[in-house]
Amino acid sequence: MDTSKEIAVGIDIGGTNSRFGVVDGNGKVLEHDRFPTSTYPKAEGYVRAISRKIKEVLKKYEAYTFKGIGVGAPNGNYFKGTIEQAPNLPWKGMISFVDMFKKQFDERVVLTNDANAAAIGEMMFGGARHMKDFIVITLGTGLGSGIVVNGDLVYGHDGFAGELGHTFVYMDSGRKCGCGRQGCLETYASAQGIKRTVFELLAEKTRDSELRGLSFNEMTSEDIFHAAQNGDRLAKQAFDITGQYLGMKLADAVVFSSPQAIFLYGGLAKSGNLILNPTIKTFDDHVMAIYKGKVSILSSELNGKQGAILGAAALVWKQRK
Amino acid sequence: MDTSKEIAVGIDIGGTNSRFGVVDGNGKVLEHDRFPTSTYPKAEGYVRAISRKIKEVLKKYEAYTFKGIGVGAPNGNYFKGTIEQAPNLPWKGMISFVDMFKKQFDERVVLTNDANAAAIGEMMFGGARHMKDFIVITLGTGLGSGIVVNGDLVYGHDGFAGELGHTFVYMDSGRKCGCGRQGCLETYASAQGIKRTVFELLAEKTRDSELRGLSFNEMTSEDIFHAAQNGDRLAKQAFDITGQYLGMKLADAVVFSSPQAIFLYGGLAKSGNLILNPTIKTFDDHVMAIYKGKVSILSSELNGKQGAILGAAALVWKQRK
Repeated sequence: MDTSKEIAVGIDIGGTNSRFGVVDGNGKVLEHDRFPTSTYPKAEGYVRAISRKIKEVLKKYEAYTFKGIGVGAPNGNYFKGTIEQAPNLPWKGMISFVDMFKKQFDERVVLTNDANAAAIGEMMFGGARHMKDFIVITLGTGLGSGIVVNGDLVYGHDGFAGELGHTFVYMDSGRKCGCGRQGCLETYASAQGIKRTVFELLAEKTRDSELRGLSFNEMTSEDIFHAAQNGDRLAKQAFDITGQYLGMKLADAVVFSSPQAIFLYGGLAKSGNLILNPTIKTFDDHVMAIYKGKVSILSSELNGKQGAILGAAALVWKQRK
Repeated sequence: MDTSKEIAVGIDIGGTNSRFGVVDGNGKVLEHDRFPTSTYPKAEGYVRAISRKIKEVLKKYEAYTFKGIGVGAPNGNYFKGTIEQAPNLPWKGMISFVDMFKKQFDERVVLTNDANAAAIGEMMFGGARHMKDFIVITLGTGLGSGIVVNGDLVYGHDGFAGELGHTFVYMDSGRKCGCGRQGCLETYASAQGIKRTVFELLAEKTRDSELRGLSFNEMTSEDIFHAAQNGDRLAKQAFDITGQYLGMKLADAVVFSSPQAIFLYGGLAKSGNLILNPTIKTFDDHVMAIYKGKVSILSSELNGKQGAILGAAALVWKQRK
């Protein structure tokens, strides 16, 4: 079957903007665009409008077989096709997102959360093409994870598996987490996490740093990345500490599924070796002997590409068996 | 298909003795017996001798269809059919166990580690009969785990998945573990772990306890169980602490696969509510909100039955898809 003649639409829903694109079966993004999310106070209105836009775009691709639409969304539930209580989206409660799309399209519509979509994308179009057991860690505002076991994404009995960001670095202590508990990995290893580490270091150390000029509200993980690239020692130390937390908890995570590789994807992962090196070193120092030397920690091959769109589109081809 | 007319042989290999039995497809143990392990300095001799014994026994069951042999063994590798570096067995190095059996039998021979066999047994004959996502925790000398995701056991890319006993309770600190690291869950939650906790309590407290009369070498988890049943407060406290460690780490584990249930199996699990109650309470207090009320922590239905034999035999029917 010539999959280069098949296309799917991938939609990556963010709080302010969505991004969508037309992807062929070989992982080529034929075109992509943005679409506002926050403009639509109701999900129905959003789905109607973006569907219109997609139908418009698809007219150019009549020579292709259109396979369907894949959606990656925060708190997306694969089984129910719903987006549930997503804190950063304008639509509250439980949104029957797939049902809304099915009123517009006869083809397959598949939805899952953004980290699961990233894992499916890695398996279909990225570095996990020949792997059956691997994990993708998304380092965005929070820390998400998509886990693949024996070629299938792990959804769990309710569709909510894969929340490695909410394993404990510290039990009953440590940083307060958005989930209501304390000490979760994502409060240390994520864009927000590294900023919190920088603020701890700014408080503890007397060392000069260009980050001393930015407020908590102003500072982004890009600022920390650029400071580290400029040789700012405090910023580099923040990356080291972040990698140490991450490496330690990844050593804990591999005992579950003995994966061949762990891919780091997303904003913070784009910092490359700044985050990879301390993560790998700490992982190697702590992983159980039977896994040593068997698990590669890699930067996602979809970083810097239209990864979120590719992952969402890949859902259409990689349906659960 | 009438599975009551099918039989398999299950073998549970222990360091001193093995136990084996004939099991029908409905999970009825038709007969069972012990067989010495430590008498055989070489695995080849062991396999030849137990095969002879099994063939003898099988003569009685000619009215049944003999499906094959399932073996649960420490460090058993499902993919390779080998037992690798098992510290408590007389046979050192890498033993090609399945190949040795195949010289004796034309039927299917399947091997995995004891915790994986327990999980398959629970799925086929125990409390997980209608579940596709669950975890079995075996509380023996150590802590083993068998993880089932979407109806399949998680083996990982190399067959070594499911070592939840070696997740960290404490990082870079805590009790020394047999795996060479420190702070692993099994040093707290296992027959050895509860004994170590008792010895900490004996050192810390001044409270009277019948356990003060036993040396470290003498004391077993049964002694601690009986003391707790007799109302010994220190022994009860040891169970509480053990359950707290276990409940805490199970709260961490469910984020991986979002299971419907976690079953506790084996020696320490037979202590029933003494271990279940503190485990469940701590789990409920610490689990992430999206999993709350969704995960049952239960005593294995195979506890007190010929669970290890049932689990090993079940392997023959529940081959990987």
